[in-house]
Amino acid sequence: MPDAKLLETFPAPSDTPFVIEHISEEFTSVCPKTGHPDFADVLLRYQPKAAKAGGTCVELKSLKLYYQSFRNEGIFYEAVTNQIRDDLVGLMQPEWLQIVTIWKGRGGIKSNIRADHGAVPSQYLGR
Amino acid sequence: MPDAKLLETFPAPSDTPFVIEHISEEFTSVCPKTGHPDFADVLLRYQPKAAKAGGTCVELKSLKLYYQSFRNEGIFYEAVTNQIRDDLVGLMQPEWLQIVTIWKGRGGIKSNIRADHGAVPSQYLGR
Amino acid sequence: MPDAKLLETFPAPSDTPFVIEHISEEFTSVCPKTGHPDFADVLLRYQPKAAKAGGTCVELKSLKLYYQSFRNEGIFYEAVTNQIRDDLVGLMQPEWLQIVTIWKGRGGIKSNIRADHGAVPSQYLGR
Amino acid sequence: MPDAKLLETFPAPSDTPFVIEHISEEFTSVCPKTGHPDFADVLLRYQPKAAKAGGTCVELKSLKLYYQSFRNEGIFYEAVTNQIRDDLVGLMQPEWLQIVTIWKGRGGIKSNIRADHGAVPSQYLGR
Amino acid sequence: MPDAKLLETFPAPSDTPFVIEHISEEFTSVCPKTGHPDFADVLLRYQPKAAKAGGTCVELKSLKLYYQSFRNEGIFYEAVTNQIRDDLVGLMQPEWLQIVTIWKGRGGIKSNIRADHGAVPSQYLGR
Amino acid sequence: MPDAKLLETFPAPSDTPFVIEHISEEFTSVCPKTGHPDFADVLLRYQPKAAKAGGTCVELKSLKLYYQSFRNEGIFYEAVTNQIRDDLVGLMQPEWLQIVTIWKGRGGIKSNIRADHGAVPSQYLGR
Amino acid sequence: MPDAKLLETFPAPSDTPFVIEHISEEFTSVCPKTGHPDFADVLLRYQPKAAKAGGTCVELKSLKLYYQSFRNEGIFYEAVTNQIRDDLVGLMQPEWLQIVTIWKGRGGIKSNIRADHGAVPSQYLGR
Amino acid sequence: MPDAKLLETFPAPSDTPFVIEHISEEFTSVCPKTGHPDFADVLLRYQPKAAKAGGTCVELKSLKLYYQSFRNEGIFYEAVTNQIRDDLVGLMQPEWLQIVTIWKGRGGIKSNIRADHGAVPSQYLGR
Amino acid sequence: MPDAKLLETFPAPSDTPFVIEHISEEFTSVCPKTGHPDFADVLLRYQPKAAKAGGTCVELKSLKLYYQSFRNEGIFYEAVTNQIRDDLVGLMQPEWLQIVTIWKGRGGIKSNIRADHGAVPSQYLGR
Amino acid sequence: MPDAKLLETFPAPSDTPFVIEHISEEFTSVCPKTGHPDFADVLLRYQPKAAKAGGTCVELKSLKLYYQSFRNEGIFYEAVTNQIRDDLVGLMQPEWLQIVTIWKGRGGIKSNIRADHGAVPSQYLGR
Repeated sequence: MPDAKLLETFPAPSDTPFVIEHISEEFTSVCPKTGHPDFADVLLRYQPKAAKAGGTCVELKSLKLYYQSFRNEGIFYEAVTNQIRDDLVGLMQPEWLQIVTIWKGRGGIKSNIRADHGAVPSQYLGR
Repeated sequence: MPDAKLLETFPAPSDTPFVIEHISEEFTSVCPKTGHPDFADVLLRYQPKAAKAGGTCVELKSLKLYYQSFRNEGIFYEAVTNQIRDDLVGLMQPEWLQIVTIWKGRGGIKSNIRADHGAVPSQYLGR
Repeated sequence: MPDAKLLETFPAPSDTPFVIEHISEEFTSVCPKTGHPDFADVLLRYQPKAAKAGGTCVELKSLKLYYQSFRNEGIFYEAVTNQIRDDLVGLMQPEWLQIVTIWKGRGGIKSNIRADHGAVPSQYLGR
Repeated sequence: MPDAKLLETFPAPSDTPFVIEHISEEFTSVCPKTGHPDFADVLLRYQPKAAKAGGTCVELKSLKLYYQSFRNEGIFYEAVTNQIRDDLVGLMQPEWLQIVTIWKGRGGIKSNIRADHGAVPSQYLGR
Repeated sequence: MPDAKLLETFPAPSDTPFVIEHISEEFTSVCPKTGHPDFADVLLRYQPKAAKAGGTCVELKSLKLYYQSFRNEGIFYEAVTNQIRDDLVGLMQPEWLQIVTIWKGRGGIKSNIRADHGAVPSQYLGR
Repeated sequence: MPDAKLLETFPAPSDTPFVIEHISEEFTSVCPKTGHPDFADVLLRYQPKAAKAGGTCVELKSLKLYYQSFRNEGIFYEAVTNQIRDDLVGLMQPEWLQIVTIWKGRGGIKSNIRADHGAVPSQYLGR
Repeated sequence: MPDAKLLETFPAPSDTPFVIEHISEEFTSVCPKTGHPDFADVLLRYQPKAAKAGGTCVELKSLKLYYQSFRNEGIFYEAVTNQIRDDLVGLMQPEWLQIVTIWKGRGGIKSNIRADHGAVPSQYLGR
Repeated sequence: MPDAKLLETFPAPSDTPFVIEHISEEFTSVCPKTGHPDFADVLLRYQPKAAKAGGTCVELKSLKLYYQSFRNEGIFYEAVTNQIRDDLVGLMQPEWLQIVTIWKGRGGIKSNIRADHGAVPSQYLGR
Repeated sequence: MPDAKLLETFPAPSDTPFVIEHISEEFTSVCPKTGHPDFADVLLRYQPKAAKAGGTCVELKSLKLYYQSFRNEGIFYEAVTNQIRDDLVGLMQPEWLQIVTIWKGRGGIKSNIRADHGAVPSQYLGR
Repeated sequence: MPDAKLLETFPAPSDTPFVIEHISEEFTSVCPKTGHPDFADVLLRYQPKAAKAGGTCVELKSLKLYYQSFRNEGIFYEAVTNQIRDDLVGLMQPEWLQIVTIWKGRGGIKSNIRADHGAVPSQYLGR
């Protein structure tokens, strides 16, 4: 079951703004309607708060375990994407944050869902 | 025959704006002039209204059936693209919506048609 | 309905052996189980009989019309592939002939079916 | 000889703005200096005038014949590109229109020429 | 738990030899050592026995369910590959059969495992 | 009009066997049925006779002019391929020679034609 | 030795603004430090002055000869790029002009240098 | 141990603004947590100060040696990226400077880190 | 220092022959001549002895540690390749085994080295 | 001027047969007819004699200098290829050796020349 308590942080290493991008190619959950597994890439981008403002970064291994906690959860594409954004925003209060989920095709249709928090720079909005 | 009544919706899962992209690689209709089949990818992008404003999302399987209803319809590229946009806008009244149809070549010429509704963010306008 | 009588031939232009390859990227039929459309590339390779032995080649436009005759037919992948091979072998009695059908994914699984007639050269057997 | 009278139109199918892109991969003309053939892809993008304003679209087969009329014409890259833009603008008076010609290499140098008419959206200007 | 009883067959549609290839891009199991999920593509190729010899083909949807039964199983790469081969050979007694599993990287190393049954044609042996 | 007299040769530079491959990406002729232009890549491979046996190689610029002589000729795919092979074999009497023509799609079908002379090594036969 | 006098022009063919791009894939000079050859692609983009303002375009063959004049010159990446920009700006006084040099790797590091003149449109600035 | 004193400069060759991009595909450091090596591409982009303002460029071979000094250093992704930016900004005081590190996957997750200094043009911000 | 004692094995899981391929994209050693680091992909392919003949497979994590032991070793391309082959053959006495090392470019030249043991199937010999 | 005396060797490191491949992407010579530069990739493959038979390998830096000695030489494609093969065979007397030169296009035609010595394994003959 998705569990935000698996997520851990470490202090942001700089006061100068910088951007972090983590791309997981191994996300899987379960369709709540059909019971069949769904597969996605999950793209996370964010700018941590400055170190002096108590900014934090999500720790990479804890992020992996958090994503794995969706493995046997029945949940829709749109809900996955909104929940990951909300959990990570709650964890870090970053300057801005973006989640894009890129799902393998179902019935000949491929889907991508994008959820933003804060002032995501425009160059990231096209995907 | 194209049939917008096949389309179903579900409530948008969030008040925070987010973007949905569905890419069908299996669209086919018939050229009204020659009677030969045409083949296209159909790219749909939209931002649903917020949940609290009654926003809805198109259900994926109903979208597939709606696209299949064009299978034996004689209809031009431009008309297909405008009709899909109008049907989906009528269904969901989204914040904005975009349809791009990408047609296989005819007579050595490949064609793409793009129809927008509302304030499509500029990063999506180049295709 | 698939109709081999749509197929036409013209005389092979040479006594020297040569090889013809036609790749259709616009084949569609219907799944007899679900009623949903299937989409495939169809690859035809053959060596016509020599001109002096009455060799013939399939005419390209008639081949297109023949493929189109499967459009609304409920038929399995394996049956499509075997039927096209049998119809074309019956038409031309070529030295050898090969059909490969390359189907878009269903349920996360993509399928390719290959049916040969006669002594297909080994370099074509890997696909 | 290039002949704009080959071009035909049909009425724009909508009052809502939309964009049409036709990509020909089979353009050829002749270098007026060397007499050798030149080969290009020709990319046409435009937004027709609204239907209620008498907007029209170029008919696809007539566009093909128009392009073919350059086949044995001795004409420079730059002149081809400007002439196609001018002929199509004269034909349709579109909201905006763009021609990009993409030429195969000569002497180790590949060339692209871009000619615009009206307020081409900025996302198309990079090519 | 992997369950070969999920697999179903249908009679081979022809006496002429032909080849079937099913490529699943959505296989996942669990590493028995670390408990972390593993992800693979699974490539199945086989030639069914002739129809007159009682040849059968694996039914596509049952194959999908069979693959899904590995989802929460702790099992090594090599064992997965050998088990799938053995289960499918037991099901169909095909002329020949080949399984290739293509695993996502672990610790900077990507792995592919190939298990054959019977006289797999040499052109398939390089992968 | 295709004109083999445009072709010139130079003496093979070595008695040790070697292989020459020339790939033209700018071949065009005319469909004798529709009058529309056809476009192809033409792949030539051959092993010249040894220098001491009077072996010759086709001169590159003369090959270009020879290909250009097909520009306004109405001729079928199969005939083009066989004629180029015959003209070049007549010119050089090479140890072996191969022509592959790779045609742009017509009606959703792409075609490749391969014509060989002499003992073309098997690794070139798959294309 | 690099020689700007090799460059020739012809009058711009239009008063309507348009853009020309020439990409040379065959540039080579010599490293002044090591004496080893360097290899680059050279990308030139510019908008000529309008015809009525005396605008000119660089002639393609003369551009090729000008680039060849760097062949045995010992010169740094940055100096090459600035010199080509200055020579071409001096030649044509274009509305704007951009040079990008894309160098093959040295010591595991690949380098690109970009030099602009005038108001290069922003869509070209990212490369 | 990372050593900024390895870095050398040479005077900027021009007063006209220009942009330099160096891409190292051979960066490696060590994870301070696990002791395992990490591998990255390091992308450096900057605009030197004008020559007349005392602008300098980093010398390419010294940059390579500086990158090599991280080889056996235990250091996190985020710290590497911020340190390289700070060292190069300290060296050159450029108009603007950008570092992007692109790390090979760990645990199924790939990471990119971007650190900017000064007014990096917006077209470089998307990566 | 390269250390074959880091390598561990586990028993082959089957008596039926099968093939294992491990591809490391993170190999680095040091050039003994220049002291600069070298980077390579290392491709290992082998067929273990049958289980009943005491066949073993190399354990994946121990293989990673073994490769890491070359990190600061001064050693030539050819010696690396031969040593890895010899160490792994000594460890497992496999039916056959192949090592291919694929090195990043030095001085504009990329190198691949291939070392085989036993009867490597011909389809693997081309790389 | 091409100078085989630039080539140096070192002793083969093993008695077990192995294969070495060096790919230069930076070869240039001059067309003796037009005086314009030609550019090629040069692919060298060989199996050295066994160490105990006095086998040697070509030293990589000397190979680079040897290739550079063609820089200002007027020489045809076919002659370059045969000369490199002969010079390297003379240097090393390898078990077998293969040179493939891959030339950038001239007049719309790209050329590849392949020259072999000894019993080149068949899997290398297709290029």
